[in-house]
Amino acid sequence: MKDQKETLSVVKIGGGVIEDPQALKYFCQAFSQIPGPKILVHGGGKSATALAEKLGIPTKMINGRRCTPKDSLEVITMTYAGTANKTIVSQLQADQCNALGLSGADANSISATKRNPKPIDYGFVGDHLKVNASLIKTLLSHGICPVFCAITHDGNGQLLNTNADTIAAEIAIAMADNYETHLWYCFEKQGVLVSEAPLEVLVSLSPNEMKQLINDGVIHSGMIPKLSNGFHALEKGVHKVGIGNEDMLANKGPFTLLKKN
Amino acid sequence: MKDQKETLSVVKIGGGVIEDPQALKYFCQAFSQIPGPKILVHGGGKSATALAEKLGIPTKMINGRRCTPKDSLEVITMTYAGTANKTIVSQLQADQCNALGLSGADANSISATKRNPKPIDYGFVGDHLKVNASLIKTLLSHGICPVFCAITHDGNGQLLNTNADTIAAEIAIAMADNYETHLWYCFEKQGVLVSEAPLEVLVSLSPNEMKQLINDGVIHSGMIPKLSNGFHALEKGVHKVGIGNEDMLANKGPFTLLKKN
Repeated sequence: MKDQKETLSVVKIGGGVIEDPQALKYFCQAFSQIPGPKILVHGGGKSATALAEKLGIPTKMINGRRCTPKDSLEVITMTYAGTANKTIVSQLQADQCNALGLSGADANSISATKRNPKPIDYGFVGDHLKVNASLIKTLLSHGICPVFCAITHDGNGQLLNTNADTIAAEIAIAMADNYETHLWYCFEKQGVLVSEAPLEVLVSLSPNEMKQLINDGVIHSGMIPKLSNGFHALEKGVHKVGIGNEDMLANKGPFTLLKKN
Repeated sequence: MKDQKETLSVVKIGGGVIEDPQALKYFCQAFSQIPGPKILVHGGGKSATALAEKLGIPTKMINGRRCTPKDSLEVITMTYAGTANKTIVSQLQADQCNALGLSGADANSISATKRNPKPIDYGFVGDHLKVNASLIKTLLSHGICPVFCAITHDGNGQLLNTNADTIAAEIAIAMADNYETHLWYCFEKQGVLVSEAPLEVLVSLSPNEMKQLINDGVIHSGMIPKLSNGFHALEKGVHKVGIGNEDMLANKGPFTLLKKN
């Protein structure tokens, strides 16, 4: 008989939570109370854009996607690995959660490849992530909660801006051999909404239902890559993927559970 | 017969090294080649001041000492824990050194007390450090090289700006029970200089000799607290304390060795 695997919770928080001190405090309390080993992944949201504006660094977009030239990468490193990561870590420590902040460069926890500049040069952006599952397992076994910011490295001294939803999915996938892995995409809303007023939350969602709802215009913009990452994680062995707000972490509210079929 | 303790090198680098990309690359190569377990401590030098100026945040000084109000702390967190720490960590990774960046908040590695605001309020500055030797030992035993930036926390969610020379000394002291601990203060010069031209480096220095040289005006300003930290470490069980440039790390150049008497 196979031993029951321990449950590992991988939680990604959105920028909206990070920027609001009260929301962040509330989130950190909810996160700290998740039983068992856990991992947090965050970006830095609008704070990077705000700092870039103050410093007169223009935000360059191509086809609606943000580019990361050298000066933008520096701003992202300051805000994601600096302000956001350390604010979250110190708050979690106050909540008795033994958090340790990491970029992918730290202990080579996540390496990546710089995106091919042909046909479009998006700058210092990381793709094709390799997660160091053995390091993460070691940290978890010592009661440490890794807190990842959305930065990886190429192993040759170059930091790379990397999508936080993708990082969360790849970490969950890499850990799924060792743990019963649950991936939670946590943001301001209570899940994938069919309607805001009256509030209608999708309780479950399959890939086919997603396609239909994209065609109907119900699911759009930032939700699409988030769901793609979630379904990819489910395909690759992650046991549970949910989308909702921090009440989902405490089983206190509705959320959207992804299902394979 | 007592077992021979393993040697642990604790190296502090100065701001001048961090800000010059070529000097930093050279330093990281020299540091990576130190045999055995090692720890790096850094501040962020003038980059915090430069960023604060760009953002219009005034540098407040009292009695020649820098104050750290809330907005300055944020700039320090961005530059020390963000830019400086991650640049160093990714460069060390490229040099085959398994670096992991830490503030004192991370895994509660160094806690401190906010300096008493009476009689002078220096803002969010940390004193009375407590180093988590057991965590550091765990990281070292897994082949990880901790890289500390000059930020600690109070355990209640507050980050604190903390002198990097003091952090290096307190880490070396905390590890001296478990390792033969060597503390290296690494900066632009080859040690405590008696004269710049012709170059005369003090090969060794005792507390009494220091007092005499302070009276003579040979030792002054930033060198005094650095030496005080060094002699304190020596008093508290650190086995060797040296001051010099990166050639000291490879035994390739002169440096100043502190001695107890």
